[in-house]
Amino acid sequence: MTDTDIFGKQVPILIRNVSLNGKIQEIYLDGTGMIGAVGEKITDHDAEFIIDGDGATALPGMINMHTHSPMGLLRGYADDMQLFEWLSTKIWPTEAHLTEDDIYWGAKLACLEMIRTGTTTFNDMYFKMESVGRAVDEAGIRACLSYCMIDGGDHAKFESEARIMESTVKNIRSLHNPRVMPGVSPHAVYTVSEEGLAWCAEYAKKEQIPLHVHLSETEQEVADCVAAHGMRPPAWLDHCGVLFEQCIAAHCCWLDAGDITLLAKRGVTAVHNPISNMKLAGNRALPYPEMKTAGVNVALGTDGASSNNALDMFSEMKTAAILQKFFWNDPTVMPAADALKIASQNGAKALGLNAGVIAPGRLADLILIGRNPLNVPFFSTDSNAVYATSGLAVSTTICDGVILMHDGVIPGAEEIMNKAGDVASDLVRRAAQA
Amino acid sequence: MTDTDIFGKQVPILIRNVSLNGKIQEIYLDGTGMIGAVGEKITDHDAEFIIDGDGATALPGMINMHTHSPMGLLRGYADDMQLFEWLSTKIWPTEAHLTEDDIYWGAKLACLEMIRTGTTTFNDMYFKMESVGRAVDEAGIRACLSYCMIDGGDHAKFESEARIMESTVKNIRSLHNPRVMPGVSPHAVYTVSEEGLAWCAEYAKKEQIPLHVHLSETEQEVADCVAAHGMRPPAWLDHCGVLFEQCIAAHCCWLDAGDITLLAKRGVTAVHNPISNMKLAGNRALPYPEMKTAGVNVALGTDGASSNNALDMFSEMKTAAILQKFFWNDPTVMPAADALKIASQNGAKALGLNAGVIAPGRLADLILIGRNPLNVPFFSTDSNAVYATSGLAVSTTICDGVILMHDGVIPGAEEIMNKAGDVASDLVRRAAQA
Repeated sequence: MTDTDIFGKQVPILIRNVSLNGKIQEIYLDGTGMIGAVGEKITDHDAEFIIDGDGATALPGMINMHTHSPMGLLRGYADDMQLFEWLSTKIWPTEAHLTEDDIYWGAKLACLEMIRTGTTTFNDMYFKMESVGRAVDEAGIRACLSYCMIDGGDHAKFESEARIMESTVKNIRSLHNPRVMPGVSPHAVYTVSEEGLAWCAEYAKKEQIPLHVHLSETEQEVADCVAAHGMRPPAWLDHCGVLFEQCIAAHCCWLDAGDITLLAKRGVTAVHNPISNMKLAGNRALPYPEMKTAGVNVALGTDGASSNNALDMFSEMKTAAILQKFFWNDPTVMPAADALKIASQNGAKALGLNAGVIAPGRLADLILIGRNPLNVPFFSTDSNAVYATSGLAVSTTICDGVILMHDGVIPGAEEIMNKAGDVASDLVRRAAQA
Repeated sequence: MTDTDIFGKQVPILIRNVSLNGKIQEIYLDGTGMIGAVGEKITDHDAEFIIDGDGATALPGMINMHTHSPMGLLRGYADDMQLFEWLSTKIWPTEAHLTEDDIYWGAKLACLEMIRTGTTTFNDMYFKMESVGRAVDEAGIRACLSYCMIDGGDHAKFESEARIMESTVKNIRSLHNPRVMPGVSPHAVYTVSEEGLAWCAEYAKKEQIPLHVHLSETEQEVADCVAAHGMRPPAWLDHCGVLFEQCIAAHCCWLDAGDITLLAKRGVTAVHNPISNMKLAGNRALPYPEMKTAGVNVALGTDGASSNNALDMFSEMKTAAILQKFFWNDPTVMPAADALKIASQNGAKALGLNAGVIAPGRLADLILIGRNPLNVPFFSTDSNAVYATSGLAVSTTICDGVILMHDGVIPGAEEIMNKAGDVASDLVRRAAQA
């Protein structure tokens, strides 16, 4: 079997001699997208390809629970600015020029970056999501894709946004690819009307698909919501029917005890976005200790690459773990095992995926960390993964039982980098001329 | 010239077609350890080796201004614990068993990790520093090495520590390697007596070598110093003669306006260690905005790998930039260009090195970032280096005009990883049996 033969096929694969949870194990992928067996020695197998995992560590594929994947086109275009100035003078005017083709290449770049850094699933919110769907379909990773409704309290705008959302869900479904899942995204309490929020909630429940929303990212958002509705954002969302078990709420920085109790009661997943919150000077960290105690399902996300500026979940895990310790003034908060869990299992739970853990009967979404100096010595899988490794240490990425990267090689990477770079330059040029 | 021929030799090298400060340039290393020329097209050269920099970005080698290099042996051995419990039950009992050979292999691992992640100079404080000196000499990078004095207020201990410090300086000098420089390290105000601090200051001034000290890392340290001496730590150090132009003070979290004025007046370099401060729940960030205004030379460091757990200066730059924004509640604080400067130029200034900038007449200490998805698109060298890249994106590391890594290959890396891993396991085993 030649090297290029290993990519893009769902065939039985045996990974030998790999470190898994501190033990040298073998992992058998059964050729149907599932993990067939895990053990010290798997003799009963029909593997078409054997990966020598010597020196490598196996981890579940990372699950990035809050992204705007096409925004990678604006990575490094503008940084270190006040939030509103950044949005109004740089991001929004440029985004207004995004074509379907731009979004396709932006999503291709994001998928490439995620495969390179060990992410196998992402939860994405943007617009022209059919283009993102095509990119995900081709890339081989898994994603939940939601059109982002912003109606600004305008009924006519709400109606048109609702129709786009319905057609997006229909179009994503027409790909007939179980890796590409539709979702629903009302942007936030300050950009979507009561009728918009209520409609999204009802529609998500009817279609039984996740709802992805921004929640309590800034102090201002909370104050404005209280002024407008007499309720804090979680209560207002609940009033609109938005808080239910498939609700995924990004940021969740400015929550109080009542907010946390409400999210726990409704079974909402809260997504921690530590790097974005720090870079945009959000001034408060998601209250992980209280949320853990209350039983809220907390997951992890990078946000868009223009406010991070990477989609590297390893960097995000480390930042989450150390920000929690720093902000809550306790080095025992969010130990390494928790950081790994929010980056894998908890995201899978939110999306209803049988993933996030390497075990028989689970989806074959997993990665290998290659041998490198940052992974020596090897006292703890969790600690090394969270505190020492970066995403570029990932050598092999497998999603749905298909090898997407091996030994750092991703077929077609060069073309995607070239094209995405050109598309980004052209986009910014067009926006500047407008 | 075969591939292995390129390593370890100080010969004229031409780097072609590389992105430098946003332009495609050529960089000529003159074969004496210096940068000979930088320009669009260098025709007058006698390069023995030509590096094709197509798609790569050139940056100055990172300068890690606060490390305890052998502590990499304890990476991942214990995390997520209260500081004193971590030190007293895990770190100190294990460190007590460190042999010269352990320290040599720990430093070899640290040098390997730093070369891998683009650091060309580090400022190190530990003990048995002759072993570290041997590792640095062999590795090809640059370091300032200081024995760490701790006398606990005991005069006899002070005397013996002073003699060890003197012999360490003498032994480091006997290597006759300009890359390996001696320094002096009184540990901190709470572990070294007044006579110890004063002696270190006088000795460093006499020998004209840097003094490396911990300063105001925790709130407790400040309170204890005020209680013991009626002065905050910077004033107490100044009283002991420790604050002078070659003083390098790590951490500097808990500084007030008077402290900052004093450090600026004395020309002290303050080293920001954001990841270590966050991981150990220091609860306050170095006051960079005020220090920048006051004109304090701020540099950057990782601290030891057991409280980080990496020596990756790219991860450290990003964390510094986003922690500053978050803690001081302003996204304009520490823009990307500042983060790069504290990680390069400002460290060079503190150590009196003609490095930290890629320009003719400077030391040939530089690195190349290889083409990778996180570096696309390419709107800003600074932003991509600080916010998107991780140290594992470094493809080539050159120090003193000598290629130490090329295309991610470092000769002898496998042996160092194997041996350091074995040494670490054996160390922990011995400590557990004691």
